[in-house]
Amino acid sequence: MALFSFFTPVFVAIICILVVIILNSKRKSSKKQESKNNPKSESRPWVDEDLQDSTELQLGEEAEDDGWQGLDENLQHVPFSSECYPENEMVKRSREFYELLNKRRSVRFISDDPVPREVIDNVIKTAGTAPSGAHTEPWTFVVVQDPKVKHEIREIIEEEEEINYKKRMGEKWVNDLKRLRTNWIKEYLDTAPYLILIFKQVYGLLPDNKKRIHYYNEISVSIACGILLAALQNVGLVTVTSTPLNCGPRLRVLLQRPINEKLLMLLPVGYPSKDATVPDLKRKPLDEIRVAI
Amino acid sequence: MALFSFFTPVFVAIICILVVIILNSKRKSSKKQESKNNPKSESRPWVDEDLQDSTELQLGEEAEDDGWQGLDENLQHVPFSSECYPENEMVKRSREFYELLNKRRSVRFISDDPVPREVIDNVIKTAGTAPSGAHTEPWTFVVVQDPKVKHEIREIIEEEEEINYKKRMGEKWVNDLKRLRTNWIKEYLDTAPYLILIFKQVYGLLPDNKKRIHYYNEISVSIACGILLAALQNVGLVTVTSTPLNCGPRLRVLLQRPINEKLLMLLPVGYPSKDATVPDLKRKPLDEIRVAI
Repeated sequence: MALFSFFTPVFVAIICILVVIILNSKRKSSKKQESKNNPKSESRPWVDEDLQDSTELQLGEEAEDDGWQGLDENLQHVPFSSECYPENEMVKRSREFYELLNKRRSVRFISDDPVPREVIDNVIKTAGTAPSGAHTEPWTFVVVQDPKVKHEIREIIEEEEEINYKKRMGEKWVNDLKRLRTNWIKEYLDTAPYLILIFKQVYGLLPDNKKRIHYYNEISVSIACGILLAALQNVGLVTVTSTPLNCGPRLRVLLQRPINEKLLMLLPVGYPSKDATVPDLKRKPLDEIRVAI
Repeated sequence: MALFSFFTPVFVAIICILVVIILNSKRKSSKKQESKNNPKSESRPWVDEDLQDSTELQLGEEAEDDGWQGLDENLQHVPFSSECYPENEMVKRSREFYELLNKRRSVRFISDDPVPREVIDNVIKTAGTAPSGAHTEPWTFVVVQDPKVKHEIREIIEEEEEINYKKRMGEKWVNDLKRLRTNWIKEYLDTAPYLILIFKQVYGLLPDNKKRIHYYNEISVSIACGILLAALQNVGLVTVTSTPLNCGPRLRVLLQRPINEKLLMLLPVGYPSKDATVPDLKRKPLDEIRVAI
């Protein structure tokens, strides 16, 4: 029995190579997993870091809703009819509504002139008529009128936005925004008589602390925002649809909103200031946005 | 030189074991990757599988836009003013608009009565006034009037929806929808005089085949949908905001939309049928959706 045959060193070498391959592939796959765990931050830099909110991680481990807690089992269905206009009246209404909405612009210069509270309540009620997945109505509109709180909001947003512009957003995006003359200074957060912060409820919290799934919550709340914008335009108020990147968790805590709510949009609302300007943008004509089949 | 020493079989065995380990770990890591590539389908079952569209994978490897192709560098800024109503008029307008929109319901019974084409064009133009991230206007509204194409759409949707209801959606969701009396039979896809399919352009395609980033495209298009719903309600037409799960790729191909477009919503549009019913749902009162600070 030749303990150390001629081929033994060859076998030992092969074994060593295989061990190295195994170790290497394990290291690689764990690296891949790390990057896969955070795919959005690479591909969509404008997606909020709200999910890194540490308070959420604790709640995330709680039991999900496992009993039926949604719509009433005996929900009645009732006859429906709607207002029916003659055809020429329909055409006229559709044209006038287009002309009204087509005057809407995102305005970043908002006067501090007061606005009737009832108007703000009515536009929010109007937004609340939006459809939502399985009628979950997954929205909260926080209306801030208190100057001190408005200023605290401004401080948080300007602090984060400065980092966004300088580090997080990337050259292309900053270039896009330069044309719109936006930067991280948001004077309107102090001057606008109202700030409407729109939170999406990513899940519902039931009385027994279980969760209720909110299907399509982001789409539903965005649709409600579209209706809100139409309602504001209808009364002659202006706003700018802002999505304060990475401010969600701090603003949520400031405004004492529960853990299931995530900031989706912030709308400063008021009259335009006297020296307001807007970029001279054109909208695409019908033929570029509609395909008829 | 003992070619086959006593230890040679042992070395061969070790080598075999190591090779098996390597092959196994490679298979596992590729499985992990697959599941990581589709993290949403686990946590958000209602998110579309459109990203599995095989045509996209090819295009995904193309170069991204690396030059400035967005808003004009010399974009002018112009003075802005808006219609200013007296306070009592504002309050009145806000209340009337709320009352109009509060009558909107998701209606699944749509008559085949014809609707003037001009009205549909105007409501789409109105939707196109929505704000969008860096004014990218990332929407395409496909208006289908052709009965044959409508029926093809119906066939695709009913086929996928049956699988959705029976396999993909889970018991809770199906329970939620049972209360709304919805299932996978969608008669309105044949009867409604128009189907509006709303596509989000997840990126822009530039003439040189490079991609332009579309910030917040889903939120922007959803806002446009909200405005579209308001415009439809304003002319007395009804719809139901549907999100045909997993039908996106097939409908995109049927309607010959480019690879950068993903189906977000489908709205059948028309007058309600005479025997239309709706579930007797209530909306949350103002105090449950608004927080005043």
